[in-house]
Formats: sequence, C-alpha cells, structure tokens
Amino acid sequence: MRRVYLDHNATTPLRAEARVAMIAAMDVCGNPSSVHAEGRAAKAMVEKARGQVARAFGAEGGDVVFVSSATEAAALACAGRDLLGAEIEHDAVAAWIDPCLKVNAEGRVTVGDPARTALQLANSETGVIQDLPQGLAVVDATQAFGKLPVAFNWLGCGMALVSAHKLGGPKGVGALVMPRGTDLHAQLKGGGQEMGRRAGTENVIGIAGFGAAAEAAARDLDAGIWAGVEKIRNILEFAIADAARETIFVGKGAKRLPNTSCFATPGWKGETQVMQMDLAGFAISAGSACSSGKVRASRVLRAMGHSEETAASAIRVSLGPETTEEDVSRFVEAWLKTYRRFRERAA
Amino acid sequence: MRRVYLDHNATTPLRAEARVAMIAAMDVCGNPSSVHAEGRAAKAMVEKARGQVARAFGAEGGDVVFVSSATEAAALACAGRDLLGAEIEHDAVAAWIDPCLKVNAEGRVTVGDPARTALQLANSETGVIQDLPQGLAVVDATQAFGKLPVAFNWLGCGMALVSAHKLGGPKGVGALVMPRGTDLHAQLKGGGQEMGRRAGTENVIGIAGFGAAAEAAARDLDAGIWAGVEKIRNILEFAIADAARETIFVGKGAKRLPNTSCFATPGWKGETQVMQMDLAGFAISAGSACSSGKVRASRVLRAMGHSEETAASAIRVSLGPETTEEDVSRFVEAWLKTYRRFRERAA
Repeated sequence: MRRVYLDHNATTPLRAEARVAMIAAMDVCGNPSSVHAEGRAAKAMVEKARGQVARAFGAEGGDVVFVSSATEAAALACAGRDLLGAEIEHDAVAAWIDPCLKVNAEGRVTVGDPARTALQLANSETGVIQDLPQGLAVVDATQAFGKLPVAFNWLGCGMALVSAHKLGGPKGVGALVMPRGTDLHAQLKGGGQEMGRRAGTENVIGIAGFGAAAEAAARDLDAGIWAGVEKIRNILEFAIADAARETIFVGKGAKRLPNTSCFATPGWKGETQVMQMDLAGFAISAGSACSSGKVRASRVLRAMGHSEETAASAIRVSLGPETTEEDVSRFVEAWLKTYRRFRERAA
Repeated sequence: MRRVYLDHNATTPLRAEARVAMIAAMDVCGNPSSVHAEGRAAKAMVEKARGQVARAFGAEGGDVVFVSSATEAAALACAGRDLLGAEIEHDAVAAWIDPCLKVNAEGRVTVGDPARTALQLANSETGVIQDLPQGLAVVDATQAFGKLPVAFNWLGCGMALVSAHKLGGPKGVGALVMPRGTDLHAQLKGGGQEMGRRAGTENVIGIAGFGAAAEAAARDLDAGIWAGVEKIRNILEFAIADAARETIFVGKGAKRLPNTSCFATPGWKGETQVMQMDLAGFAISAGSACSSGKVRASRVLRAMGHSEETAASAIRVSLGPETTEEDVSRFVEAWLKTYRRFRERAA
C-alpha cells in the first residue's frame, strides 16, 4: 500500500521545479569564482537563485547569504552575541541563546528587548506563530517561509534564517538574510565567496534548487494553496478530537501554521505512536526531527506548561501541498485503530 | 567551436555516476534524523556514501564527517588550534595557521613539529606533492584525493580534508576524515547529526553524489587513467617549452599531480592570459579559483622564491580524465598564437 508522508516540517519532498533546476545545474561545470565563461555561467546560476529567494522572502534589496543549512545560518547570526530567547526555539538557535524569555500556555513568547532577542516566526513542533515585534536581532523563519506570507523588508529585524528543504528545496542549503551592507563576521574563512561573509565553493546545484523551490512555493502561497491544506488539517483534528476525547491539541487556541497538528494522548508515548504509524504506512514524528533518537519529552511543550507525561505523549502531523483528504482519512482510521488498542491495554 | 575546459583544479565536471546517484537521491524525501521508513532510507543513502568515501580514501574504520566544503573542514580541523603551516597552503587553511614554515624553490615544505602542523598533500596551483611526515595534525588532501593514491589509514595524521567537487562530485560537499573516536568540538550546534560533530540536516543529494564520485574516481585511479593524463600534460609542456623559451614551468623539478601545469611568461600577466584564452574557447586560471577577482600575484609562487613579476605572469592549466590530446593541441596552438602577439607588442 502506498505510504503517506505527513512529516513535512521535518523535511519536504523535492518540488518538480527544484528537480529541473538542479538537473540543469549539473551541466554547468564551472566554479562560480572563476572568471572564464564556465565560471560566469555557474555564478549566474547562483545569482539567479539569490534573486528568487530574495523575491520569495520579500527581501528585495537585501542581502541573501547562502549557507549549508538554517543551522549554519543560526550559528552565523547568533554565536557570540549574547542573545536572549525562549525554550521553544529550535536546537540550532537554542545552542546560542539564553533561554530566559517567558512562554505562555499557547506557546507565545513575551519579548522585552527585541534588539537582543532571537525569535522564531513559527514553531516546528506546534506550528504556533509569533507576532514579531519590530527590531528583533534574529528571526528564525525556517518553518514559516513558504507556508506564510513573509516580507523580510517589513519585519524590521537584523537577520533572518531560512532553509530550502522546508519548502520543497534540497537538504543542505539555507540562507541568512539581512539588510544590504550588514556587518557580518565570517565564520568560514578562505576564499572571498558570498561577499566575504561565508567562504567555501558554492553548492551550485543545491542553490539552484533552493531558488526554484522558493519561487514555486511563493507562487503556491499566492494561489492560496495553504487554505486547502488547513482545511484538511482541520478535518484531521476534528475527527481525532471527536473519537479520542482525552487527546490534547497543542497550541490550538493560537494562530498556527496551516499544515501542522501537534496532539498528545497522555500515557501513549509519542515515540511509540511514531513507530506504530510507521508500520501502518504513515510518516509522522514526535518532536523535531533533529532530536530523534534523543528519547526525551519535548521541551517546547514543557515550556508551554504541559506536564512531562503530556509532552512525552505528543506527536506531530505535518501536511504538505500534495497531501489529500484521502491521505488524512486513511491516517485517522489507522491512528484510531491503534488508539483503541492502546485504550484497551490501558483499561 | 566546442569549448575546452582545462581548469579541473578549480572544479570538475560532474561524473556520470554522481549524476545518477544524485537523481536517485532526489526521490528519497525523508530527513536522515527521522526514525520512520522515509528517514531511514535517507540515512541509508548518507551511510552508503560515507562508506564509499572512506574506502576511496583508504580510511576504512575511520570517521568521515560530512561538511559543506573543504573550507568548512579546514575551519573545523584548524580553528583555535595554533597550528603552523606554510605560505603555500590554500586560503581556507591559511586563514587559521601561522605561515612560518620554509618552502624551497620546488615548493616543498620543511616541517619541524608535525603534531602542530597543517600541510597539504598537493598544491592546487602548481600540483607539487609533499612527502608527508608521520603524525601531522592536519593534511589537506583536497587536490590529491582522486588523483593520487592516498591511504588515510597510513598517513598517521590527526585529520584530513577532502572535497567532492575536485573529483567529479558536486560543489558544496566535503568531509573531515579522522581516526574513529577522535575528539572534535562541533562548530555548528543544534541537532546531533554527524555523531554530534556537525549539526544541520544532511545534504543528502550532494552526499550521495560525493560517494558515487569518490568510488568512480578510485576506480579510475586504480585503472591507471592518470598516467594518460600525465602524458598529455607533458606533451603540452614540451610544446610550450619548445616554442616559448622564456616560459618558466613552476615546480617542474618536483613530484607533481599528473594533471597540473603552472607556467609563467614574465611580463605577460596571468589574468590577461586567462581572458585571452577564455575568448579563444579555453577555460584556465591564474592562481586558485577562490582568489579570482583579487588581482594579486600568487603567494604560492612568491613563497617558492619567484619574483613578483613571474608570480603575476603565471597561469594554471589543469587537465581531467576526459581531456584529450586534441584538446591540448588546440590549446597549445591558441596559446602560442596569442603568445606571439604578446612578443610582437613587447618587442
């Protein structure tokens, strides 16, 4: 039976547009730093993608520095800057901040000093969206980019992180976006690539894929594709809430990403549910993908005031533009079947 | 007329095997950190490539940490370690070392304290190969890997850097290789990828390409393909030496990479030659690609005792496995035609 992929917040299938752009880039053999025709052709591909990402992110006129992941962008943006943040930030940002900011029950963060703060636009586990104050030091837009309208030029922030593989681009490419001319101390030194901000020969094929995916994602967003996804997500939540009365939908009272549902059924471990659903043909997750293997309750849910038991019982179902109502019906059916077995054993 | 690419030390055309592996990886949508079937399939691709790179590099049983470039590998291996080196190192290594070691006229480095030294195996500009003492802290094998037999397990060094795009893999993937269990402080933090040594979702498509390219490169090397390339390189040098008597072949007395020729015609700027040859249909370089745009004489040649004028007049012609004798004959013809014009103007 066909498997159903419902883990788009972990990573997305490659968009057809990205695939085409990447295969085309495979034929360009030059090094973007070389001055000859082959080099200039490679450089042109990188610059085309830079424009595509800037436009899709509403950052026209700003600088888009290509890096190898949002994790690298986070290190470049946050390391050594003594920034404040909240416990709900992704590990890649959390590694560099003082997690002292308050999070309320709906997952919203209270910011005191924006200029010293790193804040996510949307949470990967719960989908909860923050109202961003003006003047933030760093905005982690990794999960939001492609799913929500974002206009970097209107955010009024110092820098923003994005990643290709969350919007249908390849894994291994991200970008740090900033107003033109921002002073940024390179961490990777050597060649003078990326305007001296990030040395290393450019991932031309990956960058071409990022550009094409960002453009396609922006087009889909404009076309209102996520309203359909949200409708399907709501059908899923309604069906589960109706049949599993003790199940808690995390962050449901807040504005959320249209594709994300995080729900906990106390006593039924998230890790177990992920394995049971995997055997039934569905890819979902418990917590963020990077933390897999680390068997611990989600610190995001703990920060929202959920108990250790609830946090350990949460799963995340994240839909994509290609997810159908039938996919979700099949998931609900399989999940409820397993849920009833859990209830019987628990009884 | 068909262009001739003679800049393989800057970057190489993508090998057919890498292309196939990358296109196959495009269909694997999971995140290697996810525990479900899609995640495990992505993880398996990364681990297959890890084995391919380890075998090709003679590093079976060692740890191969995938990074985004040899530049990143250099930062990870060298930053904050107070290492010694020579002026001939690539910018990516030179950024982190004290360049105090002596270089002789043939480009060979005298090492005093291997445990505190970073040393390249082969130079990108001249092709000069070092005899590596045992016990080096860091070996930069970027240019050598794929062109020379290298057995990491016999080098007796702490770490070695390699890059995919120098041996027919994609740009944007490199590796840091080390004996199993080496203590390495991660610079990118967040998810626990790459055994905790390098966070960030893996560049699955690029890594798959690296693995396939490394395997194919090792097979070609075993088959003796570089002996043929060396013969063609020598034909080129003989033809030019015969007609342009004042042209200096840099490092010719030393052991060199079989594909590389660096030669200087005093008074005729390398940058000018690169542009003239580009217009004539040939991609070559002056100095290393990353330094392009920086109009300055090669510090590698200066370190070997060449004058500023000679260093500024050098070009690098670097052949690949697909380079034919006809390619080189055409290049020699075009170069000599331009050379004669230079001589006439100079007279």
